[in-house]
Amino acid sequence: MSERSSRASGRRRTVPAPQLQLRIRVRVGDVVAVGPGKIALLGAVREHGSISAAARSLDMSYRRAWLLLDELNRSLVSPATVASQGGRRGGGAQVTASGEALLALYRRIEAEALAVTRRDTARLLRMLARPGPTPT
Amino acid sequence: MSERSSRASGRRRTVPAPQLQLRIRVRVGDVVAVGPGKIALLGAVREHGSISAAARSLDMSYRRAWLLLDELNRSLVSPATVASQGGRRGGGAQVTASGEALLALYRRIEAEALAVTRRDTARLLRMLARPGPTPT
Repeated sequence: MSERSSRASGRRRTVPAPQLQLRIRVRVGDVVAVGPGKIALLGAVREHGSISAAARSLDMSYRRAWLLLDELNRSLVSPATVASQGGRRGGGAQVTASGEALLALYRRIEAEALAVTRRDTARLLRMLARPGPTPT
Repeated sequence: MSERSSRASGRRRTVPAPQLQLRIRVRVGDVVAVGPGKIALLGAVREHGSISAAARSLDMSYRRAWLLLDELNRSLVSPATVASQGGRRGGGAQVTASGEALLALYRRIEAEALAVTRRDTARLLRMLARPGPTPT
């Protein structure tokens, strides 16, 4: 995010601060069955209650969001989302209990990994040059 | 790797086992200053003693390897590799003490993160369907 805003503002001369990323993915062959993108989408479905609203919130096409969720659901023993057609919120989508468990588990894994590596990732960040504003 | 071999052998019907990936990156703006690719390359330079041999071992062009190492070195307070021109191994490259420290630190962070999350990543993997050989 900070990268984007620095680009958008055209201040290319200000070197942004280093950002640590820790990404967990489960691959099944060529498919990322579970990864940051699908988890963010699942979280957005939970928040917004529909695939289209979730897709919009992530600046993603409905088609892409639908395909990603379909891929996620097919990868799981029990699907993470279900369509909630009819009723008050017709055309919506809901996160299942299994989807809630997946979200919580994934986020816990991220948090655990970040917490245990905090000291060493701080060391890693200190190895990086911090040129600050620079004429290059 | 297992993905490639399964593709290469043309056995598309056998669904490979889910693989957990945990990737650590340090981004500085748009640049991945430190990440799995650069660390693998640094390890290969250390093993092979030259950029060209390291690049070959990773199926990468010399030019790409050189550019990645240059980017890595510029990102660091102290460079991870130096050219070792002249002498017995003229034209080679060596990993510096700082590069050794970076390799060790990065690999320790990976190992720590994997170790602490082992129980939860096992849970995550159990949420995935295991279709085994399938006609789809």
